[in-house]
Amino acid sequence: MRFSAEQRLEDDVLEREFTLGEVPGILWTPGSVSEPVPLILLGHPGGLRKMYPRLVARARSSAAEGYAAATLELPGSGDRPRSADAEQARADLRRALQTGEPLEEIVDRLILPLVEQAAPEWQAALDALLSLPGIGGPVGLAGGVIALGVRLAVVEPRLAAAVLFAGSFVPRSMFEEARQVTIPLHVLLQWDDEGNDRQLALDLFDAFGSKEKTLHANLGGHTGVPPFEGEAGNRFFARHLR
Amino acid sequence: MRFSAEQRLEDDVLEREFTLGEVPGILWTPGSVSEPVPLILLGHPGGLRKMYPRLVARARSSAAEGYAAATLELPGSGDRPRSADAEQARADLRRALQTGEPLEEIVDRLILPLVEQAAPEWQAALDALLSLPGIGGPVGLAGGVIALGVRLAVVEPRLAAAVLFAGSFVPRSMFEEARQVTIPLHVLLQWDDEGNDRQLALDLFDAFGSKEKTLHANLGGHTGVPPFEGEAGNRFFARHLR
Repeated sequence: MRFSAEQRLEDDVLEREFTLGEVPGILWTPGSVSEPVPLILLGHPGGLRKMYPRLVARARSSAAEGYAAATLELPGSGDRPRSADAEQARADLRRALQTGEPLEEIVDRLILPLVEQAAPEWQAALDALLSLPGIGGPVGLAGGVIALGVRLAVVEPRLAAAVLFAGSFVPRSMFEEARQVTIPLHVLLQWDDEGNDRQLALDLFDAFGSKEKTLHANLGGHTGVPPFEGEAGNRFFARHLR
Repeated sequence: MRFSAEQRLEDDVLEREFTLGEVPGILWTPGSVSEPVPLILLGHPGGLRKMYPRLVARARSSAAEGYAAATLELPGSGDRPRSADAEQARADLRRALQTGEPLEEIVDRLILPLVEQAAPEWQAALDALLSLPGIGGPVGLAGGVIALGVRLAVVEPRLAAAVLFAGSFVPRSMFEEARQVTIPLHVLLQWDDEGNDRQLALDLFDAFGSKEKTLHANLGGHTGVPPFEGEAGNRFFARHLR
């Protein structure tokens, strides 16, 4: 893990850009803490630069609660090399959404390789981040591509709790993995998200094996998660990362 | 409204039993407040004596947040005269749940007359309660027979917000009313409530016409709403009754 740039944000949060191998990422740590703090991994749909305003807002909110936060660019997004197969799948998905063709095979082609590549990258980032002074765990995951969250919840024992955003496609083949998830989950669903398959999201929530799982459904469209859900996520992490 | 008994509870909450016509009820008010306080109507499935421990716990939590709380016995429950038709419908429902017979006609016979009779009683109670010194509104509703909550949300303009518990039967004919509801709603659903029709609850949530509606689904069975949902309800009311 090489740090490439750092800056102090207004509320004394330290923001550090890094690369891990070829993968860019950002780490935010609260200004003044005496003990090692828990870490929240911030998910996103890909494209750190574009997502930066939302990510930094969430990181500052996490820092205010006493957590470090970190994120990693996704394969094929932002400054990372494009994959021809993924670009094709993305184009096919756009077309299929317009024409009403079946999505399942396209979602498999788009999401499964992404999860296969990204999950070990996020685990390697965890290795590096948790070895830094001041970051102690436990680790939470918040948002991003939900299929990646499901995979990490199954394969990554350091993950203690996750806020998942049921707003992206999940291959049906991953439902078996969802049943293996046992960590506490807080699942956000935008009820009137027109680009999202609501029934698939409800089926996925049903499939999760966790004994503590909560679904919060709201109106407001794909990007309109109400502000009070930020607080609700904070309280979920306060219950499980302290 | 005639007060029949009063006692101070531990945390300085004043509990007063009353009757309104022939209908018994209980009013709880916070100990020391200078301004008139909002009022939360506490719903329940019927049987004030049996429900008292849970009701008083919720009333004390409401009082701690600065609200008065009140509840009213339901028709045919507790000390109120039984209705032969309702008793028959209740017996039919129990049998139908065991044998797997269709429920719709039985639910109509059980719930529709209850709603017809109870809604005006709760409105009359509101008239009386809001005329008391120290109780000012706005008014919230929390829990109870969800069909009664839907009816009150439509017919009672003084109701500003409602926490509804999607854990009892709703006649299909009331979905049209659900579409007319416009107040902010916070709907609790126990995902693994075996005696409850989950799909009906989701359909009902979908039908509500409110622009702000939130569904919180949890595990724990019919009576196992997690303790953190009490807090979540308090925060919902804080957003809408202040």
